[in-house]
Amino acid sequence: MQLVNKFRDMNKKMEAYNYVLSIVGWDSGTEAPRKSFRRRAEMLGIVSRELFTLQVSKEYQSVVEELYSNIDTFDDSFQREVRKANKELKKIINIPEDEFVEYQELLQLSQQVWEDAKENNNYEAFKNNLEKIIEFNKKFALYYAPKRNPYDTLLDDYEEGMSTIEYDEFFNYLRKELVPFVKKVLEEKNNEYDKFINDSYDPKKQEEFCNYLINVFKFDTDKGLMKKSVHPFTWNTSPEDVRFTTRYLENYVFSSIFAAIHELGHATYEQQVSTDFDGTLLTGGTSMGVHESQSRFYENTVGRSLAFWETHLKKFKELFPEQTKNIEPIDMFKAVNKVEASLVRVEADELTYPMHIMLRYDIERKLMNGDVSVDDLPQLWNDLMDEYLGVRPNSDSDGVLQDVHWSAGLMGYFPTYALGSAYSAQLYFTMINDLDLDQIITDNKMEIINEWLKNKIHKYGSSKTPKELLVEVTGEEFNPKYYVKYLIEKYSKIYF
Amino acid sequence: MQLVNKFRDMNKKMEAYNYVLSIVGWDSGTEAPRKSFRRRAEMLGIVSRELFTLQVSKEYQSVVEELYSNIDTFDDSFQREVRKANKELKKIINIPEDEFVEYQELLQLSQQVWEDAKENNNYEAFKNNLEKIIEFNKKFALYYAPKRNPYDTLLDDYEEGMSTIEYDEFFNYLRKELVPFVKKVLEEKNNEYDKFINDSYDPKKQEEFCNYLINVFKFDTDKGLMKKSVHPFTWNTSPEDVRFTTRYLENYVFSSIFAAIHELGHATYEQQVSTDFDGTLLTGGTSMGVHESQSRFYENTVGRSLAFWETHLKKFKELFPEQTKNIEPIDMFKAVNKVEASLVRVEADELTYPMHIMLRYDIERKLMNGDVSVDDLPQLWNDLMDEYLGVRPNSDSDGVLQDVHWSAGLMGYFPTYALGSAYSAQLYFTMINDLDLDQIITDNKMEIINEWLKNKIHKYGSSKTPKELLVEVTGEEFNPKYYVKYLIEKYSKIYF
Repeated sequence: MQLVNKFRDMNKKMEAYNYVLSIVGWDSGTEAPRKSFRRRAEMLGIVSRELFTLQVSKEYQSVVEELYSNIDTFDDSFQREVRKANKELKKIINIPEDEFVEYQELLQLSQQVWEDAKENNNYEAFKNNLEKIIEFNKKFALYYAPKRNPYDTLLDDYEEGMSTIEYDEFFNYLRKELVPFVKKVLEEKNNEYDKFINDSYDPKKQEEFCNYLINVFKFDTDKGLMKKSVHPFTWNTSPEDVRFTTRYLENYVFSSIFAAIHELGHATYEQQVSTDFDGTLLTGGTSMGVHESQSRFYENTVGRSLAFWETHLKKFKELFPEQTKNIEPIDMFKAVNKVEASLVRVEADELTYPMHIMLRYDIERKLMNGDVSVDDLPQLWNDLMDEYLGVRPNSDSDGVLQDVHWSAGLMGYFPTYALGSAYSAQLYFTMINDLDLDQIITDNKMEIINEWLKNKIHKYGSSKTPKELLVEVTGEEFNPKYYVKYLIEKYSKIYF
Repeated sequence: MQLVNKFRDMNKKMEAYNYVLSIVGWDSGTEAPRKSFRRRAEMLGIVSRELFTLQVSKEYQSVVEELYSNIDTFDDSFQREVRKANKELKKIINIPEDEFVEYQELLQLSQQVWEDAKENNNYEAFKNNLEKIIEFNKKFALYYAPKRNPYDTLLDDYEEGMSTIEYDEFFNYLRKELVPFVKKVLEEKNNEYDKFINDSYDPKKQEEFCNYLINVFKFDTDKGLMKKSVHPFTWNTSPEDVRFTTRYLENYVFSSIFAAIHELGHATYEQQVSTDFDGTLLTGGTSMGVHESQSRFYENTVGRSLAFWETHLKKFKELFPEQTKNIEPIDMFKAVNKVEASLVRVEADELTYPMHIMLRYDIERKLMNGDVSVDDLPQLWNDLMDEYLGVRPNSDSDGVLQDVHWSAGLMGYFPTYALGSAYSAQLYFTMINDLDLDQIITDNKMEIINEWLKNKIHKYGSSKTPKELLVEVTGEEFNPKYYVKYLIEKYSKIYF
């Protein structure tokens, strides 16, 4: 019992450090003045080092190790906490300190190198950094699990229980069942709403519409807020403080709308985690994939549905009477679901999006297994784009250099984006057994959907694994057929 | 040298803790959602305790003591740092830990008790807390300086070098030279601009005007920003990150304008401190009084001048054409300088303001010396209001309960407000020897004034005491005659 208390106290202290660092991060991402970065970097360096010292302290190690060696004597929930703590600890302490420091420095530098390379369309300038990052990722994964395929270790880091076996199966299924359909859709004529989509929309009014959406989705503003930033994101320190951002592009109003709805999905998940988990390691959403399933469900299944625009186009037309003169709900539905073979992932529509992820998975898998060298990446990237979407980038800036992830060391992260969408579809087919989704959306009663999600998923925080959740809610393990079924049904209605 | 480095390193660590705590404070004061307070309190408690542990650690104590015992071997600037550190340390470590904790808890509680008492006009409910706060302040002052009048110790805490001797002289002079003049002005008719002043002004447009003011005062938005909050304040963590707030009251547009200009004065001071003092204890403004002199100079001497409105009324009229139809610069000048015997300090004009402070000084002095009991405060307060301004509060909410300061333990703070205004006047009469102030304001060239203030005051940070600064800049010690001269000249022009 004394040991448990010590574990709680030490975790609480680390939580407090993470809390203040997190607020500084929010500030930095949303409003801190441009020239404040130098001092912030210095101050954060000091506090982060203090946190790290606590995390790897002999004292914490011995507490976790002793708890772990007696794990059978605890209840399920505490067992999960101890396992989590032990895993996190093992991931760090097996890395020699000088390699850890070297890697952090490499990542710091790589951000700038990547930004410059992207801006100057100069892959050669980034290549060596990428190679080093891959090597470090491999090495660290092997320190943690010497007998496992390093990429499997990384995939499991971002989504507990996933490995190349499951992902291969998933993506092979998409390749077989979805790619032909996507190609058929891409052959259809598609520019009917381009003027409407890229018309000029006053950012102040876009913001007003996003505030309207906050009410539509019944987001609790006593426990959160919306702000703007360059890249939309969700941020939380507890269910009582969940914030998100969107951005306002004058000539692309859908960007603010669907970024806001997407982030509202993440944010609602975090707000609905039970506060019973406060002060434990089980608070917060359970995985990247499940998180993404919630944001994609909000964004695509709800926000891009016909029912949604049958109800909310009215408000949109009030704000933008000129731009929407001839627009009816069915037009809006078609416009927000326009399919296009875009070169850039973050601009991709719901249907082509998984193609972009599949491509990145293929490449990461080959990189981590040593089946492709960084020299051959641009070529491989462009060939796969051609294969999956029938388009080739003109420049590496729109190709292999487009994403921030690899320069930030995030190898194995991308697949969770597609997985989340697929989870979302599987959840959807369960939900419609319980709820008349279209009717609820038409009645503007998102609280009913939120309640369903809360009781099935949100309230459990991280106390259940993604696999456990999925089986308990849907009655079966992860099955990509729902995803393909959902996409083909939806886009057949629109295009054929 | 090793000792100096250790001193630097330990201070740097404390600075980093203060930095993150400060960002959390900014967040909490400007945007954090309402229900996030519970968790924030818990997390801040943990981090603050860590900071306190560092501050009073035996290790830090021995470093400071050893430096202090060799203080003559260092240069002036480092001597000042060591003295500062030693003083701060002595102030805390002489207090028995249980008393320190008890006092912190008392302050926590007193905030709520005071708020409730003020809301319910129930002084009796707050009286005991106030009495205890006074006793603690006395006791702690005596721990630090057993042979000194405790109020003198506190006064020196808020303004280095000030004691009841100097303040008595200051306030006696005001009582003799200013009070009769104030009474004469208060007899004049005065409601000519009331409709204009309390007209309805769209808060969005008020914000636009405040953004205009940021440009007028040449505030560097690469190193700072403006936001809104319930009570305006300035916040800074370094010259490269200085932020301030204002508030927008629909029926009192001057509130946002002069709060913004006031805070811009504080903020410009902090932005112009030399970055050479980064990482030392000499960064930031040197004292409450000098800080207030800068904000009051901006607000009153510049912002409430005729020259200012001759230049900037145009913009104001653009934003509020209806409300300003018959308003010329001279009207604006008179309106923003309306004198009134208000009951509430924060609503007081420039001329009656020092009366409010004088009253509080009289009371604090008597309280600390035991010459009045908390039972008799409301009566004493109301009598003094009558004496200085010829008005009596109808309720203690508008009388003795109006300010937050005492409930927060800030005894000895108030006098710096009047002192700052008086410093400001003394600086003004020096400045006009160098600069044609009216012409500069008319030409909209605040950068010339900023440069003067930077070279005379701002850049030195805390490396000079208020007394040193005043003598070096103005050629003489603090002299209240300038303040009275400035006020009588200005208000004679307006009223007689």
